[in-house]
Amino acid sequence: MIMDDAMSVIEIISKKRDGAPLSEKEIRYFIDGFVAGDIADYQMSAFLMAVVLNGMTGVETVAMTRAMMESGILLEFAPSDGPLIDKHSTGGVGDKISLMLLPIAIECGLRVPMISGRGLGFTGGTLDKLESIPGLKTDLAPDRFAELVEMLGGCFGAQTEEIVPADRKIYALRDATATVRSVPLITASILSKKFAEGISGVVIDVKCGRGAFMQKADEARDLAESLEMVGREMGRGIRTVITSMEQPLGHSAGNALEVIEAVSVLSGKGPGDCTELTHRLVAEMLLLGGLVQTQEEGMERSAEAIASGRALDRFARIVEAQGGELDLGGEDLGLPAAPVIKAGLAPRSGHVAMIDARLMGELIRGLGGGRFEVGDEIDPTVGFRLHKKKGDKASRGDKLFEVHARNDIDAERAARKMLEGISIIDDPVSSPQLFL
Amino acid sequence: MIMDDAMSVIEIISKKRDGAPLSEKEIRYFIDGFVAGDIADYQMSAFLMAVVLNGMTGVETVAMTRAMMESGILLEFAPSDGPLIDKHSTGGVGDKISLMLLPIAIECGLRVPMISGRGLGFTGGTLDKLESIPGLKTDLAPDRFAELVEMLGGCFGAQTEEIVPADRKIYALRDATATVRSVPLITASILSKKFAEGISGVVIDVKCGRGAFMQKADEARDLAESLEMVGREMGRGIRTVITSMEQPLGHSAGNALEVIEAVSVLSGKGPGDCTELTHRLVAEMLLLGGLVQTQEEGMERSAEAIASGRALDRFARIVEAQGGELDLGGEDLGLPAAPVIKAGLAPRSGHVAMIDARLMGELIRGLGGGRFEVGDEIDPTVGFRLHKKKGDKASRGDKLFEVHARNDIDAERAARKMLEGISIIDDPVSSPQLFL
Repeated sequence: MIMDDAMSVIEIISKKRDGAPLSEKEIRYFIDGFVAGDIADYQMSAFLMAVVLNGMTGVETVAMTRAMMESGILLEFAPSDGPLIDKHSTGGVGDKISLMLLPIAIECGLRVPMISGRGLGFTGGTLDKLESIPGLKTDLAPDRFAELVEMLGGCFGAQTEEIVPADRKIYALRDATATVRSVPLITASILSKKFAEGISGVVIDVKCGRGAFMQKADEARDLAESLEMVGREMGRGIRTVITSMEQPLGHSAGNALEVIEAVSVLSGKGPGDCTELTHRLVAEMLLLGGLVQTQEEGMERSAEAIASGRALDRFARIVEAQGGELDLGGEDLGLPAAPVIKAGLAPRSGHVAMIDARLMGELIRGLGGGRFEVGDEIDPTVGFRLHKKKGDKASRGDKLFEVHARNDIDAERAARKMLEGISIIDDPVSSPQLFL
Repeated sequence: MIMDDAMSVIEIISKKRDGAPLSEKEIRYFIDGFVAGDIADYQMSAFLMAVVLNGMTGVETVAMTRAMMESGILLEFAPSDGPLIDKHSTGGVGDKISLMLLPIAIECGLRVPMISGRGLGFTGGTLDKLESIPGLKTDLAPDRFAELVEMLGGCFGAQTEEIVPADRKIYALRDATATVRSVPLITASILSKKFAEGISGVVIDVKCGRGAFMQKADEARDLAESLEMVGREMGRGIRTVITSMEQPLGHSAGNALEVIEAVSVLSGKGPGDCTELTHRLVAEMLLLGGLVQTQEEGMERSAEAIASGRALDRFARIVEAQGGELDLGGEDLGLPAAPVIKAGLAPRSGHVAMIDARLMGELIRGLGGGRFEVGDEIDPTVGFRLHKKKGDKASRGDKLFEVHARNDIDAERAARKMLEGISIIDDPVSSPQLFL
């Protein structure tokens, strides 16, 4: 048996190396063997590199998604209590949309069993942002997670050992072996986790630009098409939206700062781009769930949930149920704050033409707000607040941003570097397009 | 530091993934880090797959060879005692040339500090063949190895922990991750080991055909060119010969059986193809060492070493010095013999058109004469003796081969399978060309 297994593993890697398509059976054998520990990390990583370079057919991508999804437990919910729809973003800088979208979508009649990830690389993670709220727990056991979805319509969960173990193991390798950028691997990673949540549909915000993993429009389109194809083949609803990630989303980036911004959106006082994107994604979810007929209707329902105060109330109840202590009336909501805040001033007058989102993400990581390695501790307080965004007029000496840091040296250094990533030109700059 | 290192490793893999050439410094950093254990197996295997699919430039291949060579100790010999020249074969079925070539080359005035490998896959290894001689040891400490080279002009050594550790670690991964077939990786693996022997030149027999790793002539030519280029760049002499490996070399394949055939060649009674190839390779070595002016002269010198009995005597002395007990007068030289010998008979009359070398190699492995995994025990007695070769006439019922096996069931099965790999046709078949 050992002989047969060893030969099959090498044959499967060889086939992918030579560009031949793998059967569903071969892909399942490979994924199951890896999760069981019979196939070594180094064999998986050679396979992953072959996939990055030779790609996968649609049939292979579906097989990979299904095999990964079925590597762990599959959540199930009673079918009667409203459509189960989730949202996923491929990740960007300042992307805190999930935080406000979840309570709004619930108030609009959906159930949202959202399982989110942590930040790695230059983009933040929803769980890290939430965990800047004192006491809040995201590592919910499957039973408790299901209970909260039943009780409150949804909650913010972390991927546990039991759910899609294949993805956790594979992702850790991809991150360490330069095999992250691959449309079929990204597709399988996203959809295996989302579909294991027991949802009937998912809206995917494919981020595109310097502050995202997909830097070019055609890569983003390829990913969107791949996601839609796999969703169709697996009998689940999928809608994709491609949005710009050239400059950071909203005015804040950094964990606690983004929670504060999320609450401001839920209070009807948030930045325009965040608010608009939230309404649009909620509308897509409602369309998928069959609760509205048009995008406009969906966006109105989303806006109502904010205007009525119901969404903020729902958010507060979910945070509380997950153990979080948020002081909605207090300064900075009672979240931990950085000891040093330093302003970055415009070195000249003109119009803001570019704010490098990727640079900001990297600087936040350097300030202690992100991870270089899995398991690194995160400082929730550090980050940036933007006072100007692309298209805005600025006079020399105007405050472009504030950096929140642990000490003066960090703050100085990050402010100086960030200024290099902001360009101010004479000619007027049109406001950037959010939807691509 | 950990941060910087982690980033560099991923950047190096990314560059190779994206087809960008690596600098000598990056390659050395990667090889050194891997040998030191700072770069994980799974990172190396992703890198190797990227090399297989995206290739390496000449400059990269030289840098890889040099970094691997310098990962361990480098042997050195006094310059006065005759040119230090070695021979390497890329491996085939029945290729026992090293066994007779080494004593012949020494008798012609060369020193040959030969470090050989073990069989893995369907091809045999020189060390495994030699170790069918009772008592013979090939795991010589570097000091003892050097002593034998001084004393006897050469000996048969195994790669030790100290010599090119990078290759041993990398090769184990390549074998398990389908990353063996790559011209730059094969080049670096061969030449790092050969040049660590302290030789000034090496002749490489690039095997081509069904019974070799390189199955096509253009692959073999690519490898030969790559080897010659790296040799030139590193200031060492290289000559390559491309030879056919469609049918097994000689009349015997299997460890002890090949030692017996080697002694028959040294006694002037060996098969024509083995004898001719040996003379040719010795001639190339003598040309490299500057001891002869023409190939003809070299081949004559090689033939003299056999005719005079000096080469056989040298072989016996080297075997004895390595602890081996060979009974040159006795039946089968006193080597262990298989309990079962079964003949394979011609199913029809005609001319032998094909003897599948690869199949024979796989069958020997199945009989216990090769390895499926590193560390598998080898049975020295099993193998095949061919009574007909390509181009020979055969009448129905003639003996085509004998299979040597541990029991009747193995013998039956191997004989039946081997007959399927031998085709006999009506039309006359020309003798195969050995040199391509």
